[in-house]
Amino acid sequence: MIRLHDNLSSGNGYKVRLILAQLGIPFERVEYDIDRGETRTPEFLERVNPNGRVPVLELEDGTMLPESDAILFYLAGGTPFLPDGRLERAQVLRWKFFEQYSHEPNIATPRFWITHRVEMTEERRLSLGTKRKLGYAALGVMEGHLASNDFFVENRYSIADIALYAYTHVAGEGGFDLEGFPAVRAWLDRVAAQPGHVPLTRA
Amino acid sequence: MIRLHDNLSSGNGYKVRLILAQLGIPFERVEYDIDRGETRTPEFLERVNPNGRVPVLELEDGTMLPESDAILFYLAGGTPFLPDGRLERAQVLRWKFFEQYSHEPNIATPRFWITHRVEMTEERRLSLGTKRKLGYAALGVMEGHLASNDFFVENRYSIADIALYAYTHVAGEGGFDLEGFPAVRAWLDRVAAQPGHVPLTRA
Repeated sequence: MIRLHDNLSSGNGYKVRLILAQLGIPFERVEYDIDRGETRTPEFLERVNPNGRVPVLELEDGTMLPESDAILFYLAGGTPFLPDGRLERAQVLRWKFFEQYSHEPNIATPRFWITHRVEMTEERRLSLGTKRKLGYAALGVMEGHLASNDFFVENRYSIADIALYAYTHVAGEGGFDLEGFPAVRAWLDRVAAQPGHVPLTRA
Repeated sequence: MIRLHDNLSSGNGYKVRLILAQLGIPFERVEYDIDRGETRTPEFLERVNPNGRVPVLELEDGTMLPESDAILFYLAGGTPFLPDGRLERAQVLRWKFFEQYSHEPNIATPRFWITHRVEMTEERRLSLGTKRKLGYAALGVMEGHLASNDFFVENRYSIADIALYAYTHVAGEGGFDLEGFPAVRAWLDRVAAQPGHVPLTRA
């Protein structure tokens, strides 16, 4: 059975839990207490992921695959969650890289600081203003796209939607207000209505 | 002819220029002065990329594909620069997401601040220490992998190497010292020795 090295509060972990649920793939889950540094131990770095992060998918042969969006791409291959065409796949990746570079660091990180009660250093306090601005800009990019599209690529639900849903639907926990983003809110409802959908905290 | 919306100082743009050169694909290049905000004009946001960034690949039918790593994946499809297997492709993506999340923001951003003479605000000054620490950690992850691998995936040159080469080979411009990373330095030489290699500033 495949094994997911995970943390239940993580939106990145949730991306993987969600697609595994929707594909009906059974898996074993190993929970790490990230507040206690359990993904930074010498053993974890040596055996699971030298980058000290979860999620990591461990295949039956022991192969370790880190990075939530690489895992999504792997699991979705050959399923309706990932289109086959070369350009369509590149567009899926375009939104996944947008998520990891322009969205996640600005929207997920404040949520992490707040929900994990991380010390609000002067550095974090100053960067929070920038993250607010860039996070709202990322939401604006999504709003513009979703104003005329039901989903991110080819107007059908794919791993691009899963990737962007993970931290957008809990953006409020990081202090973001989605009131001004009606197309994003309607899309969140469409994603949550997909067959087999599970909530973030479903282990 | 395809068209690359680009900035010549950008390592992300360089990734695309490099693979286009190595694949022998002719292209037209449109240069934007990012210091003067030319990628944030209403026209650019409307017509090229709502996220206000280059590179963007414009296909012959007018389709716009943003995100350097999505462009690499698109261009490399069906070539020796991207393996065919589902797991091998996921491993390529694993390193590309590592690059965009754990490497680029910490190694490329200080280079940008220095080489583009961006104002060193208190926020940037404080975050520079964190970026140094995380950037060296990313280089450490690369060093560990390259200590027993010639390239990042399947021991052959791929777009994973192109993605990580772009900002690693100019890490010194951002104040990083590669002295303590001999495997990384040897890999940089192997990448630079690939057929058709071009330097960052080759238009």
